[in-house]
Amino acid sequence: MAAFPTTPPATLPAPAPQDSLILRLDSAARLFLAQHHMGEHALLPELQTLCLPVVTLWSRLLRYDPATPDWPDRDRFVVPSASMLPLLHAMLHLSAPTPPPQTLGYGQHPAVEIAPGPAGQGIAAAAGMALAEQVMATRHGRSLVNHRTWVLARDTDLQTGVALEAAQLAGRFGLNRLAVLVSPAPTTDPAEFADSLARFSASGWSVRSVGAGNLAAITTALTATLRARKPTLVAFLPEDTPHPTAAPPEEELTGPWSPTARRGASVRRSWLRRLARHRGRYSFERECSGAPPPLLAEDWLRLWRQTLQHQPTHSSQQAAMAGLAALAATRPELTVLTATSGARSAPAHADQPDWPCGLQEHGMAGMLNGMALHGGLLPCAVAGMITIDRMRAALRMTALMRRKVLYLLTDDGLALSGNGGGWQPVEQLASLRAMPNLAVFRPGCAEETFACWQAALRWNGPALLVLCPHDTPDTPTPPPGRFGSATHGGYLLHGGPQRQVTLVSSGPEVTIALAAARALEETGIRTAVAALPCWEVFATQPEAYRTAVLGETGLRVGIEAASGFGWERWLGPNGIFIGMDDFGVSAPASAVYERFGITTGAICSRVINHLAASGGNEAIPVHAPVLT
Amino acid sequence: MAAFPTTPPATLPAPAPQDSLILRLDSAARLFLAQHHMGEHALLPELQTLCLPVVTLWSRLLRYDPATPDWPDRDRFVVPSASMLPLLHAMLHLSAPTPPPQTLGYGQHPAVEIAPGPAGQGIAAAAGMALAEQVMATRHGRSLVNHRTWVLARDTDLQTGVALEAAQLAGRFGLNRLAVLVSPAPTTDPAEFADSLARFSASGWSVRSVGAGNLAAITTALTATLRARKPTLVAFLPEDTPHPTAAPPEEELTGPWSPTARRGASVRRSWLRRLARHRGRYSFERECSGAPPPLLAEDWLRLWRQTLQHQPTHSSQQAAMAGLAALAATRPELTVLTATSGARSAPAHADQPDWPCGLQEHGMAGMLNGMALHGGLLPCAVAGMITIDRMRAALRMTALMRRKVLYLLTDDGLALSGNGGGWQPVEQLASLRAMPNLAVFRPGCAEETFACWQAALRWNGPALLVLCPHDTPDTPTPPPGRFGSATHGGYLLHGGPQRQVTLVSSGPEVTIALAAARALEETGIRTAVAALPCWEVFATQPEAYRTAVLGETGLRVGIEAASGFGWERWLGPNGIFIGMDDFGVSAPASAVYERFGITTGAICSRVINHLAASGGNEAIPVHAPVLT
Repeated sequence: MAAFPTTPPATLPAPAPQDSLILRLDSAARLFLAQHHMGEHALLPELQTLCLPVVTLWSRLLRYDPATPDWPDRDRFVVPSASMLPLLHAMLHLSAPTPPPQTLGYGQHPAVEIAPGPAGQGIAAAAGMALAEQVMATRHGRSLVNHRTWVLARDTDLQTGVALEAAQLAGRFGLNRLAVLVSPAPTTDPAEFADSLARFSASGWSVRSVGAGNLAAITTALTATLRARKPTLVAFLPEDTPHPTAAPPEEELTGPWSPTARRGASVRRSWLRRLARHRGRYSFERECSGAPPPLLAEDWLRLWRQTLQHQPTHSSQQAAMAGLAALAATRPELTVLTATSGARSAPAHADQPDWPCGLQEHGMAGMLNGMALHGGLLPCAVAGMITIDRMRAALRMTALMRRKVLYLLTDDGLALSGNGGGWQPVEQLASLRAMPNLAVFRPGCAEETFACWQAALRWNGPALLVLCPHDTPDTPTPPPGRFGSATHGGYLLHGGPQRQVTLVSSGPEVTIALAAARALEETGIRTAVAALPCWEVFATQPEAYRTAVLGETGLRVGIEAASGFGWERWLGPNGIFIGMDDFGVSAPASAVYERFGITTGAICSRVINHLAASGGNEAIPVHAPVLT
Repeated sequence: MAAFPTTPPATLPAPAPQDSLILRLDSAARLFLAQHHMGEHALLPELQTLCLPVVTLWSRLLRYDPATPDWPDRDRFVVPSASMLPLLHAMLHLSAPTPPPQTLGYGQHPAVEIAPGPAGQGIAAAAGMALAEQVMATRHGRSLVNHRTWVLARDTDLQTGVALEAAQLAGRFGLNRLAVLVSPAPTTDPAEFADSLARFSASGWSVRSVGAGNLAAITTALTATLRARKPTLVAFLPEDTPHPTAAPPEEELTGPWSPTARRGASVRRSWLRRLARHRGRYSFERECSGAPPPLLAEDWLRLWRQTLQHQPTHSSQQAAMAGLAALAATRPELTVLTATSGARSAPAHADQPDWPCGLQEHGMAGMLNGMALHGGLLPCAVAGMITIDRMRAALRMTALMRRKVLYLLTDDGLALSGNGGGWQPVEQLASLRAMPNLAVFRPGCAEETFACWQAALRWNGPALLVLCPHDTPDTPTPPPGRFGSATHGGYLLHGGPQRQVTLVSSGPEVTIALAAARALEETGIRTAVAALPCWEVFATQPEAYRTAVLGETGLRVGIEAASGFGWERWLGPNGIFIGMDDFGVSAPASAVYERFGITTGAICSRVINHLAASGGNEAIPVHAPVLT
C-alpha cells in the first residue's frame, strides 16, 4: 500500500468544475491510447469519443481506490469487450501509483471486472452487479454498501437479445445505480442507434444523449445518474469539433495525485471507519469472502430434515426446493432468481423474496454472472431444464471465469405431456457435461439430493442440479458393505464386487435399475447397481474407486432417460446404453419410458439377450452359480 | 379434392361488412373451444379475446384453401404455442370439409405450420417465412408468390430476446407482409405490455391497439396490414362488453361453404391458371419440392474447381466460401443469412445479396427455421462457430422438425488472439454432436470440404460445416489402397490394415496427425491416420467399415483441438485423446497448439510412452518389425 496525501478530498459530486484539469487528463489519456495501442488492433473510433466522458467519470464521480482496487464498496466499472479495454488501461495508468501490467485481461488486474465475452453479456452482468449492490445494501445498510455500476458498452451490445432481456429485468427491478455509457460506431446507421435507445427507454430506462465534446453536458448527464430513479443509458454522440490538445498533465495530476486516487482513498478510509464500528461487520466480511458460515452443513441438514419430516417427498425437485428454503435460512447471502417455468411455489424465506425473471432466462443467466462477480452473495437460479439451452452463452462465461452460481433445473422429466418434444430434455445433459469447469448433478431420492447439493456447494465453479418432478421412492437402506456415497459423484448402491452385470444409472431411473437388478437376480444373474449422479465429481475419484463402483468385469449397462452421448466413457466398448436416441414424444411418463425401453422388463431382456449373444466373451457364465 | 361451389368469390378485401355472418362464426368457434378443450388444459383467457379477431381474419382475409392446405401460395397462419392451438383447431373445424384430427400437432395437419417451442421462436420463424415470401416473390414475381404471414403470439413471446432480435431484423428487412396478433394475458401488467409494444415500435414495426370486441375496428386494423410498409403488430385488448351469443351458424356457413374455404378455393384456382401459363413454372415447382436441380453436383463441382484453380486455398473456410458462391450460381434458391462475426467478404452471387443479421444470431437462427418451413428456399447461415451457443434453442427446433438448414460456422480455430478464451470453441463440437438429427462436419483441406458439403446436402435434417481459417495443406494424394472417402463421414487416409497405432483426427489437425504418423513410422511404429470429419455419417456406415477405418487392433489416438467429451465412442477404453481439457487461452495458434500438446512431437511422445507402458497388452511389440 502506498502512502496517501492527507489533503482534504473533494466531496461528491465535485463542487466546482475544474474543467482544465479534466481536459489535461483527457489529453494524457488520448496520448496513452495513441502510444500504447498502435500495433495490436486498430483503436476503435468509439474510444476517442468516449475518452472525455470516461475521464470525467473517473475524475469526478467514480469510487475507486487504486491502492485497493478490490475494495468491496468500489464502483464497478465494467468493460465487457476487449476492444474497449485500452480506455480502462489508460485510466489505470493515469490513476494508479504503480503502472498496470502491459496487457490487461480478466484475472490480470482486479479492476478488470469481467472477462470479455459475446456481445450483450457485459450489460447483463452489470445489471447483476447492480442487483447485488441493491440486495446487499438492503441487508447491510447504505453505510457499508453504497456504490454504482458503470458499463462501457458498444452500440452492438444494445441490440442483442441478452442485453434487451437484462434491460427489461433492470427496469422491472428498479436498478437505478446502473448506468450504461455508449457511443455509436461510425458505421452505425443513426436511425438504428436511435431505435436502440428507444428500446431501452421502453424497458424502463432513463435515456440521455449528450455531445461527447461538451464537458458541461457530460458532467450534467453523469451527475444526473446519481439522482436517477431508473437505470440510465447515456449515449455520447461524436462531435466534429476537435478537442484542443492541452499540455500533458503535471505529475501532481496523475498517479497517487490523480483526482480519482485522492477521492477514492478518502472515501475508502471513511468506509473503513464505518465498517470498524458496524455491528454486522463480521457477517459482512464473511459474506464478502465467500466463505460459508461455521456449522453451515449441520444447521442446514437439521433444518432440511425437519422440513422433510413434516412434508415427506419422493421427488428430487421437491426435496431440492426444501433444501433451498433451508439454505436460505442458514445462509442469508443466498439470492434466488427464478424463471417462470421453474416450479417454485413460495419464496425461500420471508426476508428474501425471489427475483422473478419471467421468460428472460438468458438475461437472468447473464445477471447471475454479475452477481457472482460482484461478491458477497451466493447467486442461485431456478429454471426449467430445457431453458438451459437459452442460457448457455451466459453459463459458459460463468464456467470460463469459474464463478460460483448454483442452478436448480426443474422438470427434467419424461412426463411433459401436451407440449410436445420441444419441452423434453434429451441432449441437454450431454451438452452440459461437455462444458469445462461445470459440474452437473442429477440426483434421485431426497437423500441423494442433499448429498449432491453439498457437493455442488463444494465444487469450484458453477454447478447444476438437474431435478425431476417424478416421485422417486427412497432407495432401500443399503447394506453395511455399501461402497461410497453420492458425494463421491458415483457409488455402489446394490451388489458386491463379484457380478456379471452392473446397471449404472442416475436420477429417477435408479429406481428402475434397482427393480431390474432384482428381476435379473431372480434369473440367476448377479447384478449390481451403481448410481452416478455427477460425472465430474466421480471423475476426480481414484481409478481404483471408480473401477470398484462400475465393476472390473462383466457387462455395464447405462440407464438414463436422455441421450447416450458420452456414456461410452463409463460403459466401455461392450457396454449397452438404454436411453433416448431421438427427441421426446408427447405422452405420459409411463408411455415415454415404454417407448424408449426404459422399463424393468425391457432392460432385463436387453441384458439377457446380450449375455446370451456374447456368451464366452463375458468370462462369467450366464444362468450358472458364480463362485466368489 | 372436394368439389367447390362455383359462385363468384368475394374479392379482397371484403367489399361490405357481413358482420352478422362473422359474429355467428365467432359464436360457433367459441362453442367449439368450450366443447372440445375442457379436459386437458384450462383454456387460455387470451383465446377468448383473440377469437373474434381470428374469425374475422379467416373469414375476410386469409388465403387458405382447406382442400389443399399445403398450397405453396397460402397465407401462413403461425401458432407457435400449444396453448393457442385450440383456436386454430376451431377454425379448421369450421372451414374444412372433413373434420381435422382430434389432436392437433405439428406433422398431424399441414395447417400446423410449426412445432410448439420455447417462447419467441414462433415470431422469429414467422419473420423467416415472411423473408422467404419476399425472396421468392422477387425471383418468381407476384403472380406466383403473393401471400402473408400471420402469427398468433402470446404476450410473453414479445419479451424474449429471440423475438426482439428477429423483430429488429424484420424491421430492417422491411418485411411488411408479416403481422403479429397478440392479446395481453389477464395477469400481465398493462405497463409492461405497453412497453413490449413500444419496443416493437422502436424496431421499425407498425403497432396498433384495438378493442377485441369491436368488429369494425378489428376489420380496419387487419385490412390496414395489407397496405402496411412495415411489419405489423396488432394488440387486441380485452373488452368487458360481453359478446352477444348469436345463433349457431347454419350449415352453409361452415365446411366447404365457409367464407374462408370459398375464397381460398377461388384464389387458388386463379393461381393455378397463372402457374400453368408461367414461363418459370418448372423451376418454381422444382424449388417448392425441395429437390436439387438435375446435374447439380456436376455443375457445382465444375464451377467450384474453376474458382479454386484461380484462387487456390488451403483453408477449409475459404474453400467453403468458394463452394457457397458456386452453389448459389447452380442453385438459385440458396438464401444466405450472415452474422457479422462470420467471415464472408462478398455476396455469393450478384443476384442474391446476403441478408446481414448483425449480432442478432438467435433471431437469425429462428428465422432460418421459418425459411425452411416455408419451402422453396435452401436456407443457409454464415456465422462464427462460438455463436452457435446463442443459436442453440433455435437450432434444436430445426433438428426436432428435421428441416434442411445449412450452417457454415467459421473461425473454429485456435488463433483468435487478443479476445481471450471467450471466443475459443472448446465444448461446442461435443454439445452439437449430442443433438439428435443434426450432422456436424469438420473438414480439413479443400477437397474434404467439398465432400463434406455434398454429404451435408444429402443429410436428412440440419447440417453444420465447422470451418477453420487456418491454412491446412492439401493432404498428399492417397495411395491406391485408400479406404473410403470423406462422404462416408470417416476414412483411412494413410496406412493399411496392419498397424500398431491409428491416429483419428478431423479438420486442420489431420495435417498434424499425418506428420506425427510419419515421425512414428521412422521409429518403427506402424501408424495409420483416419480422418473423421462427420461422426453422424460415419455412424451410419456398416460396422465392418468402421472397424477397418479405426483399426481392429492397436492403440487408437484421437486428435482434435476441442473437448474430448464423447470421443471414447471411437477410441475405446484404452485409447488416448489429445485435445483441449479446459477453456482456450489467448495466444497465437502455434502457442495454443503447444499449450494443449497438439504438436507432432507431443503426440509422438504420448504414443511412445503409452506403448511402452502398456507393453504386452497391445499384442504388437514396439520398436520391432511387424509381420504382415
